[in-house]
Amino acid sequence: MNNECCYRLRPVLIDIFGIFHFTREGSPSNRYVLLKGYDERGFTFFTNYSSRKAADMETNPNVAVVFYWCPLRRSIRIEGTVTKLSREESETYFHQRPRASQIGALASPQSQVIPSREYLDKVENEIKQKLGESEEVPLPDWGGYLITPRTIEFWQGQTNRLHDRIRFRKSEEDVDDKSIHRGENGWVYERLAP
Amino acid sequence: MNNECCYRLRPVLIDIFGIFHFTREGSPSNRYVLLKGYDERGFTFFTNYSSRKAADMETNPNVAVVFYWCPLRRSIRIEGTVTKLSREESETYFHQRPRASQIGALASPQSQVIPSREYLDKVENEIKQKLGESEEVPLPDWGGYLITPRTIEFWQGQTNRLHDRIRFRKSEEDVDDKSIHRGENGWVYERLAP
Repeated sequence: MNNECCYRLRPVLIDIFGIFHFTREGSPSNRYVLLKGYDERGFTFFTNYSSRKAADMETNPNVAVVFYWCPLRRSIRIEGTVTKLSREESETYFHQRPRASQIGALASPQSQVIPSREYLDKVENEIKQKLGESEEVPLPDWGGYLITPRTIEFWQGQTNRLHDRIRFRKSEEDVDDKSIHRGENGWVYERLAP
Repeated sequence: MNNECCYRLRPVLIDIFGIFHFTREGSPSNRYVLLKGYDERGFTFFTNYSSRKAADMETNPNVAVVFYWCPLRRSIRIEGTVTKLSREESETYFHQRPRASQIGALASPQSQVIPSREYLDKVENEIKQKLGESEEVPLPDWGGYLITPRTIEFWQGQTNRLHDRIRFRKSEEDVDDKSIHRGENGWVYERLAP
């Protein structure tokens, strides 16, 4: 059973997250994006810098992310702000991707209306012929973002609807040791009603 | 294999969706919410009307939803606006839920900071004792929302990153029969670059 859970969790745990942000028209938008890494600074992902989500983040750097592991009934929610990674970091990661994915990223004007599937295949084939088998795929307008978290909430589902919710947030104030407790490195944590 | 896919899809397909919307501070927020129904009007879900997401939707009724089925590499994204369902619809659905869930909804001041797990259990027990075994659980500040969709996008993942994206949107204009095609009931559809 444990093994089965691990197996099922893998694609979700390692490869997927949902992210969203404002659009310019004042309406939210969301999508699933691959989580590529995390460290003490925060969480990183990569996308097309000309995509709608990149334009949205340019206008408003506030984002929110949710992970969910169905078999465990666990969820993590993150809210924070994005900044672009350096061109070097983006370039390094871009060239680690499968060559077909690199060419695909170059071929596709992400989020633009296109006339047909054939149009995309044609552009892709032109790029393939131009580059041949071995020429390095040039970096398109594409790269990484770092999410610096402001709040992180851990949710554990229970059978009777009284789920557990523990929220961590960056704060130097408000600690009362009754409801709000001091964590490490400037974080406090508190329990929320489910 | 097909059977396994169905089995794995079930909890995602029937029971889960991700929804998000603005917060009052201008930052987005998201979470997983149960999809309870859909018809020609749109998509329905239920929540605590005193929760943070309810307050957010009061301020800005624009929401976005994403579904994702990992084994099929398929995703659906919906953007639209929410309106509250009638009290009758909310009450009817509330009393169809398991009694423990009804009591849990009554006991929990959703999204508020609470001192401990024990606090919640205590409130729940007080309500249980007061109501006894059979008294109807009164409807708390809780009910349904209808999402009226403005755009619906269907995404099908492909192996080479050149995924298929077909977006439907409500529009009476723009149809050129090259990139933008006429659907039914005031919808048009178009292909987006992945």
